[in-house]
Amino acid sequence: MVATRHIWRLARRPVGSVAEGDMVFGEEAVPDLAEGEFLLKVLYLSLDPTNRIWMSDAEQYMPPVELGAPMRGLVAGRVVKSRKDGVAEGDLYSGFGLWADLMVTDGGGLNRIELPPGVPLSVAFGVLALVGPTAYFGLLDLGRPKAGETLVVSAAAGGVGQVVGQIGKLKGCRVIGIAGGPEKCRFLTEELGFDAAIDYRNEDVGARLDALAPDGIDIDFEQVGGPVMNAVVSRMRLHGRVVLCGLISRYNDTEEREDSGYWRLVLMRRLSIHGFIVTDFAGRWAEALAALGGWMADGSIRTRQDVRPGLDRALEYLDALYTGGNFGKLLVEVGAGDTGGTAR
Amino acid sequence: MVATRHIWRLARRPVGSVAEGDMVFGEEAVPDLAEGEFLLKVLYLSLDPTNRIWMSDAEQYMPPVELGAPMRGLVAGRVVKSRKDGVAEGDLYSGFGLWADLMVTDGGGLNRIELPPGVPLSVAFGVLALVGPTAYFGLLDLGRPKAGETLVVSAAAGGVGQVVGQIGKLKGCRVIGIAGGPEKCRFLTEELGFDAAIDYRNEDVGARLDALAPDGIDIDFEQVGGPVMNAVVSRMRLHGRVVLCGLISRYNDTEEREDSGYWRLVLMRRLSIHGFIVTDFAGRWAEALAALGGWMADGSIRTRQDVRPGLDRALEYLDALYTGGNFGKLLVEVGAGDTGGTAR
Repeated sequence: MVATRHIWRLARRPVGSVAEGDMVFGEEAVPDLAEGEFLLKVLYLSLDPTNRIWMSDAEQYMPPVELGAPMRGLVAGRVVKSRKDGVAEGDLYSGFGLWADLMVTDGGGLNRIELPPGVPLSVAFGVLALVGPTAYFGLLDLGRPKAGETLVVSAAAGGVGQVVGQIGKLKGCRVIGIAGGPEKCRFLTEELGFDAAIDYRNEDVGARLDALAPDGIDIDFEQVGGPVMNAVVSRMRLHGRVVLCGLISRYNDTEEREDSGYWRLVLMRRLSIHGFIVTDFAGRWAEALAALGGWMADGSIRTRQDVRPGLDRALEYLDALYTGGNFGKLLVEVGAGDTGGTAR
Repeated sequence: MVATRHIWRLARRPVGSVAEGDMVFGEEAVPDLAEGEFLLKVLYLSLDPTNRIWMSDAEQYMPPVELGAPMRGLVAGRVVKSRKDGVAEGDLYSGFGLWADLMVTDGGGLNRIELPPGVPLSVAFGVLALVGPTAYFGLLDLGRPKAGETLVVSAAAGGVGQVVGQIGKLKGCRVIGIAGGPEKCRFLTEELGFDAAIDYRNEDVGARLDALAPDGIDIDFEQVGGPVMNAVVSRMRLHGRVVLCGLISRYNDTEEREDSGYWRLVLMRRLSIHGFIVTDFAGRWAEALAALGGWMADGSIRTRQDVRPGLDRALEYLDALYTGGNFGKLLVEVGAGDTGGTAR
């Protein structure tokens, strides 16, 4: 009997928002294991804004997913069969994988997970795999926060934004989060300790920033682009830093837009703008994990995940990212109740 | 008998290019010297792109010149009368001054010049006062050139551009200059040792960059803005640096233009963009002067000045800056033949 798996493949390049038929979900035979490979049962699939970039063939930081190929995604899973030395059944791995419930791999792009005591896999994977290091290196290395400075975080209730704001507080910054809707804004100030939150759906972002930060903004941790970014960047202080981590409002664009580049303002205020992709910091991952793990263990950093069941609904869940429909790091629970356990 | 001086005052804020009547040239009594002040005979007035910024009341990095006030400029001159301890007749000073042939000052914003042996005042002032440190800090601190990288300099035949390109060569970069007209381009390659030059008036900048730098550009030392900047920035390599030192093509704009900000490209290629005003590096001036003086003394850096006679024609000369009519650092010889001497 041949084992089968469920898998998403890219059928055509999306135009604008991802539409039905751009990806196809199917069942197929699991490839045989060659020597040096192992079979990973995927327990969680991470849905990230960058997935939409990988589906396109526009300029990006990795090769796009090829048409017909399995969709690329960040996954966490358990080894169920191994023909690779040093990899044992039951081991947990996370990293680059597929939108599938079973995948054959030689381990490239994957790292073994050691669950910190008391931290479930969904949190370890949701926070530590990519989101946490992104917040850590982007804010600390490129944003260079100093105590007393004003930090604005867009997409603040998302996976990265939550951690950025809390690290900012640890560093003594005044932190203003921008998020969609009163529930997320309340979460930021009441649960996570942000100093203020702006609801971009129901408030005038510029006017609120003027009121909350009349002397201007020192750091913009930018994940959104478009009018929200313009409102923040145009209020930057002298020697401010823009950490350009994402532009989620633009990933579904069907034509190049003329972003307002504010070159004159960048010059006059001597801003620094840093394009940022966290994989550039791969050599310092252990540093980030140690710091983040400590902050999570002592309660300095709390996070909220948005875990949804069913690989077959991954595409529908992904769409929520671009409309702000998620609340916290968005994960698909692929393992049907198998959540990877918690180390005791 | 009351001594008189000639002086330019700002009569109204220019709209677009500076026009007749925006500044008025007149003769007036020299103010009396108070205790702690000295009288400086201006020998050279530096004309700089930033002069146009100071005339406007748009956002800028210093207070604008007030209407009716003497026009601000960088000057070099000789002390002709002193009521200030430590300042003697005959001393040479340079720094912030007025578009005038005589000025009374307490020395604020001025520094004493010691002429290096064999270096005339026009060169010491034209290169070392501001242009040289601008090239030095902008390229080395913000551009961070590494041997083998490709550096593009716009306004390359101007005061700053000449020095940037030559420092780039000293650091082992491949240097491409962008300038207006074949004469300037020949000067860059044949006299200053640039690897290549692009004549933006007669050549397609983008196509030439594609041919000269098919693998892209590591550093853009940007002084121009507009289509020339867009052609360079859109060809930057991964982890490239944009030193945003000037936007001379935009200073006469009468309305805000939507610059093409290329945010997506800044993100994907992890560019760093640094707004840069050299006065931020005031605390490290001596370092720049020592390095530049050494390079000038050993012939590693040569420069060309564009020295023109007559304070009364300063406004007409300034206009040349914005149309590329100057060739090298533009100075007005105010001292009518008194060039400050050369140290022997």
